[in-house]
Amino acid sequence: MTGYRFGPHLISESQIFFKSNLTIGIVNLKPIAPSTLEDVHVLVIPKRNTPRLADLDNDETVDLMLSAQKIGNAVEQHYGCSSLTMTIQDGPQAGQTVPHVHMHIIPRKAGDWTNNDDVYQELDKKKQGVDNEDRTPRTEREMSAEASELRTYFNLD
Amino acid sequence: MTGYRFGPHLISESQIFFKSNLTIGIVNLKPIAPSTLEDVHVLVIPKRNTPRLADLDNDETVDLMLSAQKIGNAVEQHYGCSSLTMTIQDGPQAGQTVPHVHMHIIPRKAGDWTNNDDVYQELDKKKQGVDNEDRTPRTEREMSAEASELRTYFNLD
Repeated sequence: MTGYRFGPHLISESQIFFKSNLTIGIVNLKPIAPSTLEDVHVLVIPKRNTPRLADLDNDETVDLMLSAQKIGNAVEQHYGCSSLTMTIQDGPQAGQTVPHVHMHIIPRKAGDWTNNDDVYQELDKKKQGVDNEDRTPRTEREMSAEASELRTYFNLD
Repeated sequence: MTGYRFGPHLISESQIFFKSNLTIGIVNLKPIAPSTLEDVHVLVIPKRNTPRLADLDNDETVDLMLSAQKIGNAVEQHYGCSSLTMTIQDGPQAGQTVPHVHMHIIPRKAGDWTNNDDVYQELDKKKQGVDNEDRTPRTEREMSAEASELRTYFNLD
């Protein structure tokens, strides 16, 4: 385990594929994904645990977005995609289930979802995230393998 | 009309409620909205017209996000909301209909949509944006009134 948390949950080092000064990128314990995208769905979170985007100071906000841009490029390239869905559910009334600022990044390609924005229905209905009891969490080994691949884009040991 | 464009479309000065060095905030010609939110749905766009987030340089990316944070605070406060949906459909396979980077910001409150993420279905199905022929565009007067209200948060003349 690292010293980092996602809301109340301790983050395992094996989940982390990106680190900057104020931000980390993690693979998702319970990703949403159509079969064509091999469960790809990553989260970009500030190291400091705070629920709302408005709580971040300028340095944290800037670092979050520059990190998201880099991470988006990497996952799009790595999975042979051509677009990205990038969403912050900022607060519980926007569907946020873990009270820690996080941007969902989901690489997209033609035909990945029957209706383009079914991706969002999945984000909601399946209550992605660590607190969804309807989904089977991935194993440490699966998460570690995905993170290892993505880590190569960022020279992270 | 201003010198600014949203994709191929010229932006009217009356639509603009926020300006920073590299970013503008505009009210939407064809917003999605449940009745409880009075058609609130704003867009944050870089002044430079480029389709993908990856095309933005660091200054533009930083300015976009810091602007989005400020604009989110203002619309949430102004409409008595408690959360924000913030989404970038980055590329056509993610549902982007106007090839110009833009973040959708939709203030949220409890009960505004029957299912929380119906908001995204609306973003897709109704093809929000200037190129959706199924939706009736708002009048210049309606857009101007909304922009005038929001402008007061930013000391924009």
